[in-house]
Amino acid sequence: MAVKGLGQIDQQYDGSKLRIGIIHARWNRVIIDALVKGAIERMRELGVKEENIIVETVPGSYELPWGTKRFVDRQKKMGEPLDAVIPIGVLIKGSTMHFEYISDSTTHALMKLQNQVQLPVIFGLLTCLTEEQAFARAGIDEGHTMHNHGEDWGAAAVEMSVKFGPNNDF
Amino acid sequence: MAVKGLGQIDQQYDGSKLRIGIIHARWNRVIIDALVKGAIERMRELGVKEENIIVETVPGSYELPWGTKRFVDRQKKMGEPLDAVIPIGVLIKGSTMHFEYISDSTTHALMKLQNQVQLPVIFGLLTCLTEEQAFARAGIDEGHTMHNHGEDWGAAAVEMSVKFGPNNDF
Amino acid sequence: MAVKGLGQIDQQYDGSKLRIGIIHARWNRVIIDALVKGAIERMRELGVKEENIIVETVPGSYELPWGTKRFVDRQKKMGEPLDAVIPIGVLIKGSTMHFEYISDSTTHALMKLQNQVQLPVIFGLLTCLTEEQAFARAGIDEGHTMHNHGEDWGAAAVEMSVKFGPNNDF
Amino acid sequence: MAVKGLGQIDQQYDGSKLRIGIIHARWNRVIIDALVKGAIERMRELGVKEENIIVETVPGSYELPWGTKRFVDRQKKMGEPLDAVIPIGVLIKGSTMHFEYISDSTTHALMKLQNQVQLPVIFGLLTCLTEEQAFARAGIDEGHTMHNHGEDWGAAAVEMSVKFGPNNDF
Amino acid sequence: MAVKGLGQIDQQYDGSKLRIGIIHARWNRVIIDALVKGAIERMRELGVKEENIIVETVPGSYELPWGTKRFVDRQKKMGEPLDAVIPIGVLIKGSTMHFEYISDSTTHALMKLQNQVQLPVIFGLLTCLTEEQAFARAGIDEGHTMHNHGEDWGAAAVEMSVKFGPNNDF
Repeated sequence: MAVKGLGQIDQQYDGSKLRIGIIHARWNRVIIDALVKGAIERMRELGVKEENIIVETVPGSYELPWGTKRFVDRQKKMGEPLDAVIPIGVLIKGSTMHFEYISDSTTHALMKLQNQVQLPVIFGLLTCLTEEQAFARAGIDEGHTMHNHGEDWGAAAVEMSVKFGPNNDF
Repeated sequence: MAVKGLGQIDQQYDGSKLRIGIIHARWNRVIIDALVKGAIERMRELGVKEENIIVETVPGSYELPWGTKRFVDRQKKMGEPLDAVIPIGVLIKGSTMHFEYISDSTTHALMKLQNQVQLPVIFGLLTCLTEEQAFARAGIDEGHTMHNHGEDWGAAAVEMSVKFGPNNDF
Repeated sequence: MAVKGLGQIDQQYDGSKLRIGIIHARWNRVIIDALVKGAIERMRELGVKEENIIVETVPGSYELPWGTKRFVDRQKKMGEPLDAVIPIGVLIKGSTMHFEYISDSTTHALMKLQNQVQLPVIFGLLTCLTEEQAFARAGIDEGHTMHNHGEDWGAAAVEMSVKFGPNNDF
Repeated sequence: MAVKGLGQIDQQYDGSKLRIGIIHARWNRVIIDALVKGAIERMRELGVKEENIIVETVPGSYELPWGTKRFVDRQKKMGEPLDAVIPIGVLIKGSTMHFEYISDSTTHALMKLQNQVQLPVIFGLLTCLTEEQAFARAGIDEGHTMHNHGEDWGAAAVEMSVKFGPNNDF
Repeated sequence: MAVKGLGQIDQQYDGSKLRIGIIHARWNRVIIDALVKGAIERMRELGVKEENIIVETVPGSYELPWGTKRFVDRQKKMGEPLDAVIPIGVLIKGSTMHFEYISDSTTHALMKLQNQVQLPVIFGLLTCLTEEQAFARAGIDEGHTMHNHGEDWGAAAVEMSVKFGPNNDF
């Protein structure tokens, strides 16, 4: 049976020929920086070269979808096209409904963006009910209760680029 | 009256000429594997040939829509086009709102994908509030309280391919 | 003032020249059958001919949008185009979030489908919190507390076809 | 500074050259009729001529988006194009989730419709938790606790037509 | 490593060559006016010229997406195209579900609008549960507990225009 990957440890991916973009919001900066660092380190481990990881920023998470689109376009125009992009933002529930509407609209927009930019867009948005939850998911809470989720995003960017990126012509 | 199927047991479908794709996330792997197995066994029972069931993976459920699109494109390009595809993922409620935003955006994206790939896309996403619920729906909880939902997805893939697949030229 | 219909009983519609499709899921079959029957009887009362009511099925409600699209396409290709279509499904709240995600994505997809198929698509989805609610809305609960909602859908299909169907060239 | 309207009472709009459509559902008819009347009276006060207010109906609120689209198309085809349209419906929370799914899908569809019909579509949907709330918002509750919201919709239709309607060629 | 902006204070942006639009609803006018003022002052500080800030209004927040689209089109047609636009509205939870449906549909529509108008659209919608929350976020509550959020929107408009605006040809 043509069951690839079923019941096996998924293969090691080679990132040495990939160019990956990270675009992050700047709210909750300490958390964001840890997540970005985690993503970069994981990609480096998977062979992505330092000069092939491009980082850009936007003010807040709502700006991520449009910013990502234009960031991807720019890299293409500059002759340095991306294989995948990781938009990163940290949203924390406040007393108004701002959190819910931003989280919802941004998540849907990033999902749809993949069809526009024809690249894997990795979901690097933390949607937390408390600041503590966000610290934990960036691997920087006091008790180190969780791993840095940026690492998962870095690994996902490499895998999705290799399997389903624009330079995979099948 | 031209009432097809009304009040009758729906017909037996012949899967012997179909090629069906399964693409699954790798989080909650034990549950996923049981669901994939259930889908495959049911399709085999309905006559789908072993070599015509193609399995692919993505890291997490959010990657399913884009991964499915590219998986379908690849099979087409390779001259082995699919008649239907079953994206499979298991999402379990955590303490942040991650579950809600991933579930919502992925469900909508898989629904819309049908218009892009012009294939039936069977909804193989479990959106559970507890791990126990997910085990039960994969038919692998201790008490065997429920059947393996992967079987339903396999049957749906065969029926939808026969009735509404791309090779059904009417 | 050109106020059509305002304050008057809406007119009697003549369904004698219409061809209407019903496509229903097969979960909760007793309820579904009652709803389909209600829709058919109401359309017959409004003059739709027996041979012009075409019934098709899909496994579950999530399959309705794609199934409806292909069903409409098939009728067109066969030279027997529909004037309206009524997708019918019964969704009942369970212990996971399956109900919410299926209901939401299916409702939106059926709404959008109207622009794709250029036909009125009548909303025949019951989204109930209990089985009792669904029985009542199909007119088959013990106390006969409510009318069969399928009748409303049949009437809406006829009215919308006459007013806003594809054969109404204005 | 080119700050139009900031801190000033917004200007008086002249509706004398506008043609406005109203399309309303027929559920909760007493409330609907009051809202339609409020919208018409307000538009008349702003100079819209009696013969230039066209009223059409659909069975329920879910039918509003498709009905509105076809209504707009028909007026155009008849050589009597609309400058704006006000779909009006009254949705009241019941015991199932019908209210939520209809309200949500209809609101989004009416919003998107503006891009399809290239007209201002005024949001005339009441989404109430009780019948009393709906009576109050139509200005017909016993205590006359609120004004008729149809008046706001009529005023919005005139303003949006003048500022952003299809006959405003800038 | 090509890590722009990571760990550094984001750069100072020069707004002197930008033309920015503000379009605001007129409900909750005192709050709106404060937000608009905050946005304008911040843009002036970043060098945007008085004559290059254009302000327009719509009746309510639901009118923002269509109004913004036409406002952008008009400025383009007049030979005075915008580099970014800030739609501003204040929504406050009432006793019906009006707040939820307007907030949700408007947020998604403004997000999508960016692809239609090919401009950064800054999210200037307050979605508050109480009036007090809105006063605080406009910097005009008695205790001055929060800063004027309009300032953030003004800064975001300038940054997004410089980085990702239509006149940034890369």
